[in-house]
Amino acid sequence: MEPQLAATDYHMQVATAVDERRLWQRHLKMAVFGARDDGGVNRQALSPADVSARIQLIEWATSRGYACATDPVGNLFVRREGRNPSLPAILTGSHLDSQPAGGKFDGVYGVLAGMEVLHALDTVGVATERAIEVVAWTNEEGSRFVPGMAGSSAFAGTLPLEKLLATRDREGILFEDALASVLAATPNVKRRALGFPVGAYLEAHIEQGPVLESTRCGIGVVAGIQGTRWFTVHVKGASAHAGTTPLAMRRDAFKATTSIVTALSSLLADGDDVLRFTVGRVVVEPNSPNTVPGSVQFTIDFRHPDFEILKKLGDRVESTCMEHAGKCDILVNETLNMSPIQFDKTITDIVSAAADELGLARMFLTSGAFHDAKSLSEMCPTGMIFVPCANGISHSPSENADPAGLAAGARVLALAVEQLAQRTTLSSPGRR
Amino acid sequence: MEPQLAATDYHMQVATAVDERRLWQRHLKMAVFGARDDGGVNRQALSPADVSARIQLIEWATSRGYACATDPVGNLFVRREGRNPSLPAILTGSHLDSQPAGGKFDGVYGVLAGMEVLHALDTVGVATERAIEVVAWTNEEGSRFVPGMAGSSAFAGTLPLEKLLATRDREGILFEDALASVLAATPNVKRRALGFPVGAYLEAHIEQGPVLESTRCGIGVVAGIQGTRWFTVHVKGASAHAGTTPLAMRRDAFKATTSIVTALSSLLADGDDVLRFTVGRVVVEPNSPNTVPGSVQFTIDFRHPDFEILKKLGDRVESTCMEHAGKCDILVNETLNMSPIQFDKTITDIVSAAADELGLARMFLTSGAFHDAKSLSEMCPTGMIFVPCANGISHSPSENADPAGLAAGARVLALAVEQLAQRTTLSSPGRR
Repeated sequence: MEPQLAATDYHMQVATAVDERRLWQRHLKMAVFGARDDGGVNRQALSPADVSARIQLIEWATSRGYACATDPVGNLFVRREGRNPSLPAILTGSHLDSQPAGGKFDGVYGVLAGMEVLHALDTVGVATERAIEVVAWTNEEGSRFVPGMAGSSAFAGTLPLEKLLATRDREGILFEDALASVLAATPNVKRRALGFPVGAYLEAHIEQGPVLESTRCGIGVVAGIQGTRWFTVHVKGASAHAGTTPLAMRRDAFKATTSIVTALSSLLADGDDVLRFTVGRVVVEPNSPNTVPGSVQFTIDFRHPDFEILKKLGDRVESTCMEHAGKCDILVNETLNMSPIQFDKTITDIVSAAADELGLARMFLTSGAFHDAKSLSEMCPTGMIFVPCANGISHSPSENADPAGLAAGARVLALAVEQLAQRTTLSSPGRR
Repeated sequence: MEPQLAATDYHMQVATAVDERRLWQRHLKMAVFGARDDGGVNRQALSPADVSARIQLIEWATSRGYACATDPVGNLFVRREGRNPSLPAILTGSHLDSQPAGGKFDGVYGVLAGMEVLHALDTVGVATERAIEVVAWTNEEGSRFVPGMAGSSAFAGTLPLEKLLATRDREGILFEDALASVLAATPNVKRRALGFPVGAYLEAHIEQGPVLESTRCGIGVVAGIQGTRWFTVHVKGASAHAGTTPLAMRRDAFKATTSIVTALSSLLADGDDVLRFTVGRVVVEPNSPNTVPGSVQFTIDFRHPDFEILKKLGDRVESTCMEHAGKCDILVNETLNMSPIQFDKTITDIVSAAADELGLARMFLTSGAFHDAKSLSEMCPTGMIFVPCANGISHSPSENADPAGLAAGARVLALAVEQLAQRTTLSSPGRR
């Protein structure tokens, strides 16, 4: 017996069974639900478009004999049974909801790639020790109900169920009521509990950044999710007549803002270009051409994969703002502080090996965006696979990806998930 | 005969006859028309509140026997006759219209100070060679009908009558129709032509800046109106995900804006603090905390009293923006280019001497704001007198001034206007 050779053999069969054309067609099909005139997708969580997408997913699942289940927050699971049903399943998936002006790939890809894995394993006739489940998490985007990653956070126990159910969208509609109508529209799906044991979680996703595309690398082995600190800065000056007020007598809130942002850019300079620093929102008042700005409010989005750097530099943001405020008053609030996450080495090793086995160029990446994998990393060995997207653009109708690139990612996913599903023991995640 | 002594004698009588209390009470009375709940005034041009203010002015004038007249754009004239009615009159005044959120003094002061001059000359029994006319110019603020200084510009011939009459406000109401209802409400005022000869024009106004107050100087002898150049700058980058896009790959429009504004601040630095440079309006898109700004549009308001400096530095604005744009594209438009004006030396000499005669601290100032005097300077010797306003604030309900300070300015105005009205020859303005 030569088990190595045999494995390589059926690995290649599984990879070949991943059908690029079917995977692409399913993306196009899903994009019909919530389609926008500009080619984008508006399929916000628990909306009628989301219901249609769920019904489509259930149809694809049941047509192949997979069992569907949903939990108390609407996370939807498609199960391909394993030899040993009592072992915690391997989960793979992502989300079906989109931004209001979103695209065809963010989230959907992870779900459809998971479905492709099940299909390919069936095609080759591979039986696994553990069951494999494809999951579509509810309300990942957070654009209808705040916060994002809601379904996966509730599943992982980091967002209390009652709190999520009591959340309302902008029109005042309760999450609980929106969910009830979704569940009523999918009556033949059995119910299950939140937070059941999971063997491991592996999520495929478009990169949402330009690195893979620009380096012509097809597979991103995601090492973790960088930490994020958000601040709002209120610069308070005094509005004054632009023609009559000498500069020395001004308390110009926008001039102070340019000094502060310049100083923050120096503080947060990074020769390795790993650090992310963005002033994305700037509100000037009274915002009149011939009036000295009396007030500016701006946001700081600061991210880094290293906890110590995030702490050290982030803790200097407020004092840097103060030091460069001139005659203005400064109020700094930290609105988010999320530590970096490092994914499980077992998972990243398996993903790397799978890419190598398939002869695909791969690189380690840290995710700049949040993902449901962040929630799952709290409860089981977790990892992610990135594939390139056009120009690094996401959260936009112009979001795009290459059919062959999507299929390559699904092949790596198939090999990695299959291997995880054959293991009868998997480590629990250590907290970092 | 000792004419010097005699002049000083009745000058002091005229100054004494300027009644601080009456002048203050008239400001409070005028502030009733268009009064806002917050203590400010909303008396936009040709509105019902403006009609009420005009009727009040006409009542005050006719009760003292002065003739009232109005021209084809609604400029309102109150005439105290001179010994030689064929000599062009000395004009003094300002405007009765206010900003939507304006105060009690901007404009109104110049009209009421003029009325106080007529009253004081009557009290002392001074006859002048030339007639003296108090004028209330129509639509100085430009907040209802664009442009501002409309009435005085039409009078001076720099704004065509037909163009002004065809102007519409935000609700689509024609200037011509609004004017017709104002004239119908003031039927006993005789009509006269635009642009009749004027001997000289002297306008009293609150400073609208902090210099007089902060230097404890009661009288500003206005040397001229600084020149102004306005630009709009469009910085075009590319919006991108704040978490996933490396800084080196970004085209961050706000980062480019801070570099540009810093460079413009250096270009426009002025140790003498005469130059005015303001970035008052900044519009960031998409203006989301976790999205790299793809577009910033901002305004530049650049003013200087020296034509050469205004030209030299203003002409470098576009290239400076280009040089500091990084990877962004830049579009610069110049939206206004108004040359500086130097007031007539005859007038500034007379105003200075009047302040000195009254023992009032005075200083030369350049007006940072536009005024009707700008229009008049095109057609006759022109000058202005500034008095302090609280904290330099105007165009605001919190605009305020001191009764004694207003009266002091009216006394200087009275002496200066009287002297001009005694002169049978006055020079024509040279173009500068």
